[in-house]
Amino acid sequence: MKALMCVPNISEGRDMDVVEKVVATVKNAPGVMLLDYSSDADHNRSVISYIGSPDAMVAATKNLVSTAVELIDMSKHSGSHPRQGAVDVVPFIPVKGMEEAESVAIAREFGKWIGEEIKVPVYFYEDAAKTPDRVSLPKVRKGQYEALEEKLKDPFYLPDEGPCTFVPKTGSIQVCSRFPLVALNINLASTDLDMATRIAKSVRHINGGFRYVRGIGLALEEEGQVQVSMNLVHYEKTPIPMVMEAVKREAARYGVNVVKSELIGPVPIGAMGQVMSYYLQAHDFSLDQVLEAPLIGWSEE
Amino acid sequence: MKALMCVPNISEGRDMDVVEKVVATVKNAPGVMLLDYSSDADHNRSVISYIGSPDAMVAATKNLVSTAVELIDMSKHSGSHPRQGAVDVVPFIPVKGMEEAESVAIAREFGKWIGEEIKVPVYFYEDAAKTPDRVSLPKVRKGQYEALEEKLKDPFYLPDEGPCTFVPKTGSIQVCSRFPLVALNINLASTDLDMATRIAKSVRHINGGFRYVRGIGLALEEEGQVQVSMNLVHYEKTPIPMVMEAVKREAARYGVNVVKSELIGPVPIGAMGQVMSYYLQAHDFSLDQVLEAPLIGWSEE
Repeated sequence: MKALMCVPNISEGRDMDVVEKVVATVKNAPGVMLLDYSSDADHNRSVISYIGSPDAMVAATKNLVSTAVELIDMSKHSGSHPRQGAVDVVPFIPVKGMEEAESVAIAREFGKWIGEEIKVPVYFYEDAAKTPDRVSLPKVRKGQYEALEEKLKDPFYLPDEGPCTFVPKTGSIQVCSRFPLVALNINLASTDLDMATRIAKSVRHINGGFRYVRGIGLALEEEGQVQVSMNLVHYEKTPIPMVMEAVKREAARYGVNVVKSELIGPVPIGAMGQVMSYYLQAHDFSLDQVLEAPLIGWSEE
Repeated sequence: MKALMCVPNISEGRDMDVVEKVVATVKNAPGVMLLDYSSDADHNRSVISYIGSPDAMVAATKNLVSTAVELIDMSKHSGSHPRQGAVDVVPFIPVKGMEEAESVAIAREFGKWIGEEIKVPVYFYEDAAKTPDRVSLPKVRKGQYEALEEKLKDPFYLPDEGPCTFVPKTGSIQVCSRFPLVALNINLASTDLDMATRIAKSVRHINGGFRYVRGIGLALEEEGQVQVSMNLVHYEKTPIPMVMEAVKREAARYGVNVVKSELIGPVPIGAMGQVMSYYLQAHDFSLDQVLEAPLIGWSEE
């Protein structure tokens, strides 16, 4: 069975009546399970996450986008979080039985639908990006909604789908496919922020570390510790244990121990399987062995 | 939501028509999911495993027992596996949201039902045992079906439920509650079986090791290795990482490394959670964080 996840961010986090109406489009959609939704009034933004079979997910997400576009007026929007559209981002995340390419194809097809039906500019980013310039969402969203009208006059910002036209009520919609992200923070028994930053640099991709790791050093004043705060953006290719052990070794070079680590937010069961096989040297361990696995099957009913 | 598992062993592993009829009682039972069933012609025995909400599980298991008792005639049974009844064992296993006591109560109630409705002797063993003498299944089943008629004349073998009467067609039914078992084998880079046995002894309960570990040393001739083969009978109280590290340390005393380990059969997701928090020092990791967790909810539908 295949399971796809979708985590749209909409530009409404204050009017809960609107948020509820948008959430309702996926709440009772057949073949879809609503996982979570949360609103931030300061950001004036809501994040909705749900999971299901690919076809059911696409159908439900079309309803969500149509409803949000109808109810949200970007020309009146303010909020502290960067945004460029009423539906700001639509990330598709392959969770089970799906390759990256399949999820990318779904995201691209979905963007095409937005262009044709919603008739607003669409940008593809991350794994769905069509050029390297579009991979980074901050780059795509540079200047935000307020700059969009001008950006659309620049060939560099030609939309991937939809008209090259500024639609004040809706702005542009950013669509991507990405792998489930693992947020791993490792606390060190030290107050040396420079050291934490050096360790973050040694493991993160941009400075020569692991390909799928982003990271920074942070000071935890209250705890009297420093933290290497990381996102593992492709846990299958750069697994948690490899990163954990690398940070441990780097810290040991300074005579510093790991106090604890934190996994923030959702952790795919596949990442747990890697931790099992790595530390237990259980090279043949399979997720099919998980006692509860038969209960995880996705049902179309 | 609560999930209970049941793994009855029936004394028929050759006539697949009978096996299929018995399996059918749980296959389509509402609120129950058939996980697996397998038959062994040499043992002349089949193992059926299914999971579901406690009420649904009890109802389905009553049907399974009634059907098996009707179709299997112990007076004609032969097979290499020890057995004492047409339905030889009925183990209930708490998997989710259930305490041991609740599962024991269900097993005891189920044994009472067998006594009253099936009218054969019932023995409770493992966590459902009413006396220490009955905890061990091999002790309860000593001499097997062939000895049962004589055993029933001995007050030591007075059944826990049902009549103290030998019913040749059915024998006795053994009912238990037990925690999900984790089978962990650790292979060592050595051919010294004595050493493997000493390590097994140092970690197993009977010789002073961990309370919930049973284990032996084995020679793996083909691999040129020895193995510490263990059952962890209560992974929550004696977790996998603690046993893994103890075996590693003991082997290191002999200058021997772990080559690999094997987890055989089902592994509860709770045991995976322990491995995560132990090796990643992620003390606050919760199974609620598992991305797929919302899909594991057990539905009564």
